[in-house]
Amino acid sequence: MRSHYCGQINSSHIDQEVEICGWVHRRRDHGGVIFIDLRDREGLVQVVYDPDLPEIFSIAEQVRNEFVLRVKGRVRARPEGTVNKDLPTGEIEILGLELEVLNRSDTPPFQLDEHEKASEEIRLRYRYIDLRRPEMLEKIRVRAQVTKSLRRFLEDQGFMDIETPMLTKATPEGARDYLVPSRTHPGEFFALPQSPQLFKQLLMMSGMDRYYQIVRCFRDEDLRADRQPEFTQLDIETSFMSEDEILQLNEEMIRQLYKEVLDVDLPNPFPRMTYDEAISRFGSDRPDLRVPLELVDLGDLMQSVEFKVFSGPAKDAKGRVAAMMVPGGSSLSRKQIDEYTKYVAIYGAKGLAYIKVNELAKGIEGLQSPILKFLPDEVVNAILERTAAKDGDLIFFGADKAHVVNEALGALRVKVGQDMELMQGDWRPLWVVDFPMFERDEQNDRWTPLHHPFTSPKLDQLELLESDPGACKSRAYDMVMNGVELGGGSIRIHQQDVQQKIFQLLEISDEEAEEKFGFLLSALKFGCPPHGGLAFGLDRLVMLLTGSSSIREVMAFPKTQTAACMLTSAPSEVAPDQLRELSIRVRKPAAEEGA
Amino acid sequence: MRSHYCGQINSSHIDQEVEICGWVHRRRDHGGVIFIDLRDREGLVQVVYDPDLPEIFSIAEQVRNEFVLRVKGRVRARPEGTVNKDLPTGEIEILGLELEVLNRSDTPPFQLDEHEKASEEIRLRYRYIDLRRPEMLEKIRVRAQVTKSLRRFLEDQGFMDIETPMLTKATPEGARDYLVPSRTHPGEFFALPQSPQLFKQLLMMSGMDRYYQIVRCFRDEDLRADRQPEFTQLDIETSFMSEDEILQLNEEMIRQLYKEVLDVDLPNPFPRMTYDEAISRFGSDRPDLRVPLELVDLGDLMQSVEFKVFSGPAKDAKGRVAAMMVPGGSSLSRKQIDEYTKYVAIYGAKGLAYIKVNELAKGIEGLQSPILKFLPDEVVNAILERTAAKDGDLIFFGADKAHVVNEALGALRVKVGQDMELMQGDWRPLWVVDFPMFERDEQNDRWTPLHHPFTSPKLDQLELLESDPGACKSRAYDMVMNGVELGGGSIRIHQQDVQQKIFQLLEISDEEAEEKFGFLLSALKFGCPPHGGLAFGLDRLVMLLTGSSSIREVMAFPKTQTAACMLTSAPSEVAPDQLRELSIRVRKPAAEEGA
Repeated sequence: MRSHYCGQINSSHIDQEVEICGWVHRRRDHGGVIFIDLRDREGLVQVVYDPDLPEIFSIAEQVRNEFVLRVKGRVRARPEGTVNKDLPTGEIEILGLELEVLNRSDTPPFQLDEHEKASEEIRLRYRYIDLRRPEMLEKIRVRAQVTKSLRRFLEDQGFMDIETPMLTKATPEGARDYLVPSRTHPGEFFALPQSPQLFKQLLMMSGMDRYYQIVRCFRDEDLRADRQPEFTQLDIETSFMSEDEILQLNEEMIRQLYKEVLDVDLPNPFPRMTYDEAISRFGSDRPDLRVPLELVDLGDLMQSVEFKVFSGPAKDAKGRVAAMMVPGGSSLSRKQIDEYTKYVAIYGAKGLAYIKVNELAKGIEGLQSPILKFLPDEVVNAILERTAAKDGDLIFFGADKAHVVNEALGALRVKVGQDMELMQGDWRPLWVVDFPMFERDEQNDRWTPLHHPFTSPKLDQLELLESDPGACKSRAYDMVMNGVELGGGSIRIHQQDVQQKIFQLLEISDEEAEEKFGFLLSALKFGCPPHGGLAFGLDRLVMLLTGSSSIREVMAFPKTQTAACMLTSAPSEVAPDQLRELSIRVRKPAAEEGA
Repeated sequence: MRSHYCGQINSSHIDQEVEICGWVHRRRDHGGVIFIDLRDREGLVQVVYDPDLPEIFSIAEQVRNEFVLRVKGRVRARPEGTVNKDLPTGEIEILGLELEVLNRSDTPPFQLDEHEKASEEIRLRYRYIDLRRPEMLEKIRVRAQVTKSLRRFLEDQGFMDIETPMLTKATPEGARDYLVPSRTHPGEFFALPQSPQLFKQLLMMSGMDRYYQIVRCFRDEDLRADRQPEFTQLDIETSFMSEDEILQLNEEMIRQLYKEVLDVDLPNPFPRMTYDEAISRFGSDRPDLRVPLELVDLGDLMQSVEFKVFSGPAKDAKGRVAAMMVPGGSSLSRKQIDEYTKYVAIYGAKGLAYIKVNELAKGIEGLQSPILKFLPDEVVNAILERTAAKDGDLIFFGADKAHVVNEALGALRVKVGQDMELMQGDWRPLWVVDFPMFERDEQNDRWTPLHHPFTSPKLDQLELLESDPGACKSRAYDMVMNGVELGGGSIRIHQQDVQQKIFQLLEISDEEAEEKFGFLLSALKFGCPPHGGLAFGLDRLVMLLTGSSSIREVMAFPKTQTAACMLTSAPSEVAPDQLRELSIRVRKPAAEEGA
């Protein structure tokens, strides 16, 4: 029905006859001539109808925004002075010779150019109109480009795309499952997968060697801005590969992706950092390396000071006292510092001590801080030395339980870095490795896995499982980009006795283990190869690549914060006989049921 | 961890040291030497351990089937007389120099070589062992190759992979939906998609232009041998393309697929046949063109005969009388013909008349048939002429309601073709086009769509929608291969008034249309482009390409006939508080509830 896409016509087509199809983006009448900007997937082109062809001109007069047209015309250079350098097609226009209205359009609920005036609800209800905006189309296009690039890389490396079930058994990832009642097994339910973790491990036990899948996953959680009930994962698993080989392969994939999609060269190799180092230097296991600020430990200096705010945490094995030096930070106003104090309070910090370094040459006199009076001069001097603060800098302090200090200063670090425009570099990937196996669930007084219970401990630390589980490191790794966790994974446990020991440590009873993971434990008995893998959050990756602020922008048909689809009105009530067939009934709220 | 895959080592590696990993497929002790066939994804290789290295030899002595090994050794030519021509690695063996047992294995529940002795239940329960069989691995590999080939073709043609929701609104495809209770909207349910039909149409309205997706679909139907509750569809939709262009593009994709996967050249172009012609000549809208048998109409000849079995259907507007000539068929025994008579009875045929042509030169005397006495000689001669029967041939007859004759002779045609080894050619694709828009649901006395209610009627037949809906043809098309429907689709309705007329004709009330498809009707108002597409059944395609007899063979983790997973024991009961959160309860069977 067409010879070209609108957006692909340029000076090389001058004097050619072209046929194009698309939507009326804008229509203007100017000097007795009608200008139509016709839009398709590839862009806009200007079509001109003049009154010399009265029949066609009168059709052109009737078209309105979002009408669907088929146009035949001749490409010509735009008259001097009307060239639009901002538009790829801006040097030419099409003299319309034929015009067919393929479909009409009512006045859209919002104009594409003015989408910001429409509420998000309206835009989601009329998603098919919002998606016509070039920016939205571009995000969907980048997403398709991303999956294409990832797939091709992995396939070229011998990975096989293998589908795993959607109707499956509840997974042990901790979040709430979406359930699907079974009609043929009354009273029983499938769960939609939170991830294909166990299936991909079973595929390794099946000898598939290299598996990947771009796969939908589901979590019935209360939604935050960056969560959706269904999301997409790039899932990867390999056998007989070392941790090192897996990291190399995956960063190579991401390097190729960035090159193909953004024409950006990422570092080769990605830097690697242990979890302990990341926490110590950045207060976070997904540090944004663009921020040139670091945490510095002061515990040793503070143990003996009288100021209890510092000495308390310094003496506490679970406490931390740290400083973060901000170059140029002495320019921060009292008001700004107050705001940062409120900001760190979100993370549980009870205050935000600071020292402004005005003039080092004056010694202590050259400093400005409410806490100076509590600290001996030699401690202050040691702090200045350790943070390498210079005139005009500022030092923030954190002193509390270690996790509070880490979260508060870790978040403050990024915020100050952004506010003060200190960011360095556009893309700063890294691997974080050597995660702890477990973290202590203080509330329930038990160990929980930091990743998932199939993560292998470091092979030389197996005895720590008995003696000091909290000190035992795992063979887990996360790929972090600009402070965002792009993906994570681990070498898995391939030995049945180790897997059982982990279950015991997590206080999963034999019965529970058998019921939930019996098939995995059984499979481990029959020749399970050493294996490991990763999962990348595809939506988050596309968000990063497209600079989107919401996951809803990178999905064609997202759901709202209450997990509803404005477009189709899902979920909705269903007929009583459908429920009867499924052997379930709706449980009405207590009040209603009583009535 | 390895230098090569087991299956890829050959004479070119002789004298090289290699490292391989894999499973013990077989271990034999022979003449004081241990032979291990080591297996990985790419095949088998023979490793030899001799007692010269006593430490390693003693490890080798302990390995059993399905142990996971890491082997280092030197490739050498096999001694003369021991070369195995059937094995790609059969000219060489590896002299084992090192041996590490990466994992042990209990005795598997069945030996890979003897899987046929195990029940399907056991094989599904231990799917990860059954998948290790080279034949199963090959099917999974072909499946991955198929998706790779299809994706690359479509992406190279500018199609974008766009994901559509899994948690959505009930679809109108007729089959039973899988439902998912919503926690945040008590008493309401999502449905898992039976197909992304409406979403892909919405994507066209969004200007995406060319969409594809390899997507999971769900139908809660009673399962037959070739059905699974979840199955996979290659889903395609385009805007601004003619029917002809869509067919060309899709057959090009399938031609490329066959070339890449099977190295088979399919015809270019695929033959096209109208629905009417397919039914008339083959009794089926998905004819297997490998069978060189055709139906021939005899209605005109039979109207005036006294034999009511023939004249009745011949005079009935809904009846059909047809013949099918079988070359060489006069060799069929009475017993065989009796069996065919039983076979056509499955399709409702009340009998199976026939004429054996023994010797044409003898005229009527040269024929053999129970029905000759009922037919005038001139009718018999006309039948012989029309069927072009020769000495040694046989003519079968069908006379009944047309659909019974078509189904019975259509099925008989394929059966006789197979039994008598008449099949011609390996791969015989075709397009069936010009389907009727509607079929009559006699039971409910209403029209139902032959495809789905969004299929466009032929543009020159719009007036038939009013005057004679049964005669109105649609712009639907099916791709058929060897009697299997590989895929089907249509040009969709892009005009709101036409869509509304179709809903009226299908007796879908305005309220029902609004509730179920309101968003589509609304979208049709805002500049919907002409569009159309197809969906291919991926599982069926892979079955065909791998010569599999069951869909379960081409899925990694299939479900049983009762929609259960033997491996994970899904579905299963869930905790009461999970149901409470979802505002549902299990409805116990009446008897149990009373107790």
